[in-house]
Amino acid sequence: MSQFWSEVVNRLTPYVPGEQPKITNLVKLNTNENPYPPSPAVLEAIHHETHANLRLYPDPNSSRLKQAIADYHQLNLDQVFVGNGSDEVLALVFQALLKHDKPLLYPDITYSFYPVYCGLYDIEAELIPLAEDFSIRIEDYRRPNGGIIFPNPNAPTGCLLPLTAVEQLLQMHPESVVVVDEAYIDFGGESAISLVSQYPNLLVIQTLSKSRSLAGLRVGFAVGQADLIDALERVKNSFNSYPLDRLAVAGATAAFADDAYFRDTCSKVIASRESLASSLTQLGFEVLPSAANFIFARHPQRDAVQLAASLREKGIIVRHFKLPRIDQFLRISIGTEEECSALVTELTRILHS
Amino acid sequence: MSQFWSEVVNRLTPYVPGEQPKITNLVKLNTNENPYPPSPAVLEAIHHETHANLRLYPDPNSSRLKQAIADYHQLNLDQVFVGNGSDEVLALVFQALLKHDKPLLYPDITYSFYPVYCGLYDIEAELIPLAEDFSIRIEDYRRPNGGIIFPNPNAPTGCLLPLTAVEQLLQMHPESVVVVDEAYIDFGGESAISLVSQYPNLLVIQTLSKSRSLAGLRVGFAVGQADLIDALERVKNSFNSYPLDRLAVAGATAAFADDAYFRDTCSKVIASRESLASSLTQLGFEVLPSAANFIFARHPQRDAVQLAASLREKGIIVRHFKLPRIDQFLRISIGTEEECSALVTELTRILHS
Repeated sequence: MSQFWSEVVNRLTPYVPGEQPKITNLVKLNTNENPYPPSPAVLEAIHHETHANLRLYPDPNSSRLKQAIADYHQLNLDQVFVGNGSDEVLALVFQALLKHDKPLLYPDITYSFYPVYCGLYDIEAELIPLAEDFSIRIEDYRRPNGGIIFPNPNAPTGCLLPLTAVEQLLQMHPESVVVVDEAYIDFGGESAISLVSQYPNLLVIQTLSKSRSLAGLRVGFAVGQADLIDALERVKNSFNSYPLDRLAVAGATAAFADDAYFRDTCSKVIASRESLASSLTQLGFEVLPSAANFIFARHPQRDAVQLAASLREKGIIVRHFKLPRIDQFLRISIGTEEECSALVTELTRILHS
Repeated sequence: MSQFWSEVVNRLTPYVPGEQPKITNLVKLNTNENPYPPSPAVLEAIHHETHANLRLYPDPNSSRLKQAIADYHQLNLDQVFVGNGSDEVLALVFQALLKHDKPLLYPDITYSFYPVYCGLYDIEAELIPLAEDFSIRIEDYRRPNGGIIFPNPNAPTGCLLPLTAVEQLLQMHPESVVVVDEAYIDFGGESAISLVSQYPNLLVIQTLSKSRSLAGLRVGFAVGQADLIDALERVKNSFNSYPLDRLAVAGATAAFADDAYFRDTCSKVIASRESLASSLTQLGFEVLPSAANFIFARHPQRDAVQLAASLREKGIIVRHFKLPRIDQFLRISIGTEEECSALVTELTRILHS
C-alpha cells in the first residue's frame, strides 16, 4: 500500500497462475498446456514474418486473423474479436459487457480469474453452487442477473454442459449476456458458436493456448453478434490499439489453416485422457467425467496436498486448489503417452507404499 | 449502443491510431516508426525461440527481459515493469496510479491517448496549455493535482523539456506521481531514469517501438521505485497474467544486448531529422525544435490539410491532427535519407506549383 496508489489497487486480489518452473526435465502437468508442439506450418509462418517489417506497427484490427477465424467458423468479420490471450479477452468482456446493476452469475467452482476481474471492475457477483456431482444445473440460474459466465467444459472440473442446456440458458435470459468460455471445448464438447446467429445475447470465447498448442503466443478470441463485438472493440481501442503483435497474427492465422494437424493432436489428447482416467480409476481415484485436456480426481484415502507433494518430489507437477469443496482434488493436465505413464507409475508406487 | 453494454462503453471515445495502409510502395511518414530494421540479433533471437516450446505459457513475469532492462539502466529488478507496448503500460498506469480525488494534469497539446484513458477509467483531468512556443511551462503546474503526465519529448510537437525542469516538477509535487512518457527520448533527450533512485514519485515509461525499431513486436516498460511498480504488477495480474509472449520477450531482450546497433540507428535518424528540418525551413516552413524521430511543422501560406492531401496523392503519408492550436501543422516521421529526400522534392514541387 502506498499514498501513490489509486484506490482500486488496494482492493485487488491478483490471480496467481500455475507455476512455470525454470528447471527442465519436469513432467509438467499443472497448467493444461498441450503436450504436442504447434503445427509446423505455424512455426514456418512465424519464421517467415520475422524480418525488417517488425519495425512497423501491426494492423491494429488484426484483420487477417479475424478473417481466418470467421472463415473457419462461418461467421461474418464483424462477429469476431481477437485479443492477447483469452485472459485479456475475458478482462475486456467483464468490463464491456458484464458490469450491470444486477449481479453477474457464475458457478462457485470455476475459473479462478473470474472473481479477480470482478474485483478489478467492481462488478457484483453471485456464485451459484454446482450440483453435488459438480455439474452446472441450469435451473439454479433462474434468478435476476446482469449477465452469466461459465467455462464449458468447466474448470477445474472438466465437466461438460450439453449444448441443449446452453441453449435453454440463452432462452431463459434473453436480456442478459451469456458468456460461454470454451477454452477446452475442442477436447470433447460441442461449441456454442453454432448458436451465435440465433442468439443476440450469446458470446463465445476460445483460445489458441490449449487445443492449438500456442500458450506461448498469447492469442484468444470472442465471437458473437456485431453489437457485442463492437462493445469489445470500443474498450480495446480505449486501452491498447495493437494488442496482437505481427508474429502472433501470423502464427495464429496459420494455425487455423492446418486443420488436419489440429484434429490429429486433439484426438491424441482425448485418447490419452480416456486411458489415464481408466488407470486412475483402477488406482482407486474418483475421476470426474472430463471433456477437457485435464482430469480432476480425488483419492478417498489420500490427502491431495500430500499426493501433490509426493509427485513433485519425483519431478511431476500437478495442480491443487486450496478452495472449499475441491481441496481434496488434483487437476492433472493430459501429457504425452509417456508422461501419463510416468504419472501412473509414480502414483502406483506412492499408493502402495 | 445496446442493452447489453456496460455503462462505460457508452461514454468512450476510442483512440484512432495513425493509418496502417495495406498498399505497399508508400513513403510512410505518419506513425513515427523507425526507418531502419530491428537489429539482426533481434531477428536471430526470435528465430531461435520459434520452436516446440510455443506450446508452453511464457514466464508470467518476463523476468529475462526485466533483468536485461534493469542491467541496461542500472536498476533493481523490482524497479522494472514490462507490458504489451507502452500503450498497455500507460493504460495500467492511468488505472493504478493516476486516479485520485484531485485532477490529473497534462498539457493541452499532447499524446491523444491520454484523454481516452481518462474516459475509460473515469479520471478527472485538467489540461494545462502549452506556452505560445509550444513548450511546457513548469510554473503552470503549480496547482493541486492527483498526478501529472506528459511525454518528453512531447508529442506531437517534438519539444523537449530539460531534465532540470523535470526535476523541479518532481520537487514541486512530492505527493503526486509524475509520469514522464519517454517514447522518443533516445532521439535527443536525457532520460529521467537517472532520477528514479532519488524521487519516489517518479515513473518513467519507454517503448521499444521507436528507437529500437520494434513497433511490430509490442513491448514497452516502466521504471520507478518498487511501490509504484508493485501497483502496476497488481493491476496487471488482475487483468492478464501473460501480456508478453515468448517471441516478444526473446526479441526485446536481444535488442538491449545490441547497443552498438541501437546507437548507430538513433544517430542516423537524428542526422536525417536535422537535415530535414533545415530543408523544410528553407521551403518556408516553421519547424518546431524536435528531439524526437519526427518533425512538427506548418507553412504560413499553405493549409495543412491540403498539403497532406497533395502528398498523399504522391504516395507520401504524413499525419495531421484536427485539433485546436495545431490544425495547421503536419507531423512528419523521420524516414530514411531517401524517403526524406522524396518528401522534400515533392513539397518543393507542391509549393512552387
